[in-house]
Amino acid sequence: MIYIHSAAQIATLRGASAKPKAGKEMEELGLIEDGGIVIEDGIFTFVGSSEEARRYVAEHSGNQEVTVLSAEGRTVTPGLIDPHTHIVFSGSREFELNLRLQGAKYMDILNAGGGILYTTERTREAAEEQLMAETVKRLDRFLEYGVTTVEAKSGYGLRLEDELKQLRVVRRLNASHPVDLVPTFMGAHAVPVEYKGNADAFVRTVIEDMIPAVAREELAEFCDVFCEEGAFTVNQSRDILAAGQKWGLKPKIHADELVSYGGAELAAELGAVSADHLLHVSEAGIQRMAEAGVIAVLLPGTAFFLMAQPANARAMIAAGVPVALSTDRNPGSSPTESLPFIMNLACLTMRMTPAEVLAACTINAAHAIGRAATIGSIEVGKQADLVLFDAPNYLYLQYHYAVNLVDTVFKKGEVVIQNGRRVSA
Amino acid sequence: MIYIHSAAQIATLRGASAKPKAGKEMEELGLIEDGGIVIEDGIFTFVGSSEEARRYVAEHSGNQEVTVLSAEGRTVTPGLIDPHTHIVFSGSREFELNLRLQGAKYMDILNAGGGILYTTERTREAAEEQLMAETVKRLDRFLEYGVTTVEAKSGYGLRLEDELKQLRVVRRLNASHPVDLVPTFMGAHAVPVEYKGNADAFVRTVIEDMIPAVAREELAEFCDVFCEEGAFTVNQSRDILAAGQKWGLKPKIHADELVSYGGAELAAELGAVSADHLLHVSEAGIQRMAEAGVIAVLLPGTAFFLMAQPANARAMIAAGVPVALSTDRNPGSSPTESLPFIMNLACLTMRMTPAEVLAACTINAAHAIGRAATIGSIEVGKQADLVLFDAPNYLYLQYHYAVNLVDTVFKKGEVVIQNGRRVSA
Ligand SMILES: [Zn+2]
Ligand SMILES: [Zn+2]
Repeated sequence: MIYIHSAAQIATLRGASAKPKAGKEMEELGLIEDGGIVIEDGIFTFVGSSEEARRYVAEHSGNQEVTVLSAEGRTVTPGLIDPHTHIVFSGSREFELNLRLQGAKYMDILNAGGGILYTTERTREAAEEQLMAETVKRLDRFLEYGVTTVEAKSGYGLRLEDELKQLRVVRRLNASHPVDLVPTFMGAHAVPVEYKGNADAFVRTVIEDMIPAVAREELAEFCDVFCEEGAFTVNQSRDILAAGQKWGLKPKIHADELVSYGGAELAAELGAVSADHLLHVSEAGIQRMAEAGVIAVLLPGTAFFLMAQPANARAMIAAGVPVALSTDRNPGSSPTESLPFIMNLACLTMRMTPAEVLAACTINAAHAIGRAATIGSIEVGKQADLVLFDAPNYLYLQYHYAVNLVDTVFKKGEVVIQNGRRVSA
Repeated sequence: MIYIHSAAQIATLRGASAKPKAGKEMEELGLIEDGGIVIEDGIFTFVGSSEEARRYVAEHSGNQEVTVLSAEGRTVTPGLIDPHTHIVFSGSREFELNLRLQGAKYMDILNAGGGILYTTERTREAAEEQLMAETVKRLDRFLEYGVTTVEAKSGYGLRLEDELKQLRVVRRLNASHPVDLVPTFMGAHAVPVEYKGNADAFVRTVIEDMIPAVAREELAEFCDVFCEEGAFTVNQSRDILAAGQKWGLKPKIHADELVSYGGAELAAELGAVSADHLLHVSEAGIQRMAEAGVIAVLLPGTAFFLMAQPANARAMIAAGVPVALSTDRNPGSSPTESLPFIMNLACLTMRMTPAEVLAACTINAAHAIGRAATIGSIEVGKQADLVLFDAPNYLYLQYHYAVNLVDTVFKKGEVVIQNGRRVSA
């Protein structure tokens, strides 16, 4: 039994496990001042005031050993959840930055054989062990920034064996690393060089070869596609996601990132779990998403790193679309693991409030990866993933910006970060 | 003797100790691949290739003990220098963020008794020991982010005894903390409540009481003033800075932050060391600064946090104005110690290049605080302040953004940060 007491503030995010928070609900954090938490066997068994928790411990501990931790002066939140990453890849692309500062665009770099295709080459060449080693470093850093669960997409293999290789790395890391990983198949991330000018044929192999193989090996829960001018059309995207659905893969979509393209509308049509990016989503697309209950996963770090205007979060929240946030961790357009900084950006560049961004990185992010029954809030019965921040209240997280305020991280009731550093297993 | 070898890259920043880098010079980092460094008695005694350094050690070590450190896979830079901070204060102001997200402006909050005046109340109330303790935390965090020297301004006392209290804290911390502090008197930071509507009388006490007292106690090297509509006029600023000059305090100026106000022109007129902020500097002001050799200290974090457009760094660099960068660490408009993140911002929001931002945070920052003879570059004879970053090259520092890549920090030849964590003294 673990007894945490005297938290300056606990943001529980309670009461939204059945449905993501939308509109004004995103402001309700279920705050507790001078809070106490009890953890047993990796699960929250009591959440309330310090005093109530103390009484719970006195009545229920019996002969058990009780580990007592003071959270004095610190703010406690659920373990942060990143619902959109591309972390399994080899290499880095810092050399693209000077090109971009001189005005090169995403598609310019891709068309010049850079971008995703560069990473694809490196990732195809890399042995599984090499990919494991590089990805572990990224997961360790996520943990240092308070992130205890990440979604992880394939999409740098772009051919059967290497897509499977990426997803097998996700599976192995999910078993061996404290961070939980939720796998998404994204073979339709780019048209690989060997299919250049022949996207339809590539779509066929995604549908006929890759999806069935991924599903048979049970390597993914979601299927995603880069629906964008120059990548995959709305019709191609629909075909891929529908094929995924037939094999039990729930749809997600990279939508309306670079131009307004109908991705949000397609997400609503298919009942996708989320539509992601949405920098150029149409008003009709927002309405359709709100009606269909599609979660908007916004990635302001990508807009920041690409020097673009971020998505219109305020319009989506006003329309009742549940909003989640993510780093988009990838080697080209958002090389960061700092989800806390993404919250800073969401406040300062999208005018989300300090409360909304916390809902967006916890319970709403849990919904975006189908995990809201077990994580995303500090409630009795849920998995004991939580973060103690060196902050007197939750507002402070958006105030002392761009530094790491994470003090302690619990994953399934185990301390994995202490004084900001990884506790060795 | 300390021998560091195998650095993936050393950015020496050599050759600019006499004059700050301007224009194209800001791109020249004096890079060495597979670099080696020798440190003796806290001073660099050799800088070159690993092999050359190895030979130097063989020839010069004699019977000395040699501490050998491999910097393999890491990039080495001079210790970062922050030439503009307001770190000595009490309290925090996270509650202002929601007001600002709802549209309140800097001057609205100040006029409502918030802003600087709130911090002034807390700082006046705080005992010197309390201020010491709060400031040490900020210095520790600076060190974690690779910053080994900071300028530190008074300006939250706004009356003689409390301005002196702040500057005595700076002096004591300079003696006791590994980070070197360079003190600036900034009594004219705001008009305190007791002088409301009577700014001229406050200016008189700054000139007649505070400056002489600060100078007699040798508590500051620089004098700074907030020259801004609603704060101090150009004429008031000129009087204060000229009075400071008479007492041996070199002028600096907060110029043209909120409106175009003639602060840059005044800096040129007085031969100020730097003009800082400059979001609304006029074209004429830029020209005058270039002619007079005034350094532009740019603070893109403040623009970011205040949701404003950053300064036009490209115009200043094109005009030949030497540019430095700073966090502006303060409790209202820029609560961060991450100078590495300020470099990220400078690239992404002001289109400075990865090379320029490194020059701006090392040798040019050293010039902005009158320390270029001893710090700001890795050259024989300079103080051995340096940072090992977990990065294969200097470009990478602007690529893997918003995370802390600092691995090891040397201050005066001593390891003060190891594996990203403070080494206890
Ligand atoms: Zn993505
Ligand atoms: Zn300032």
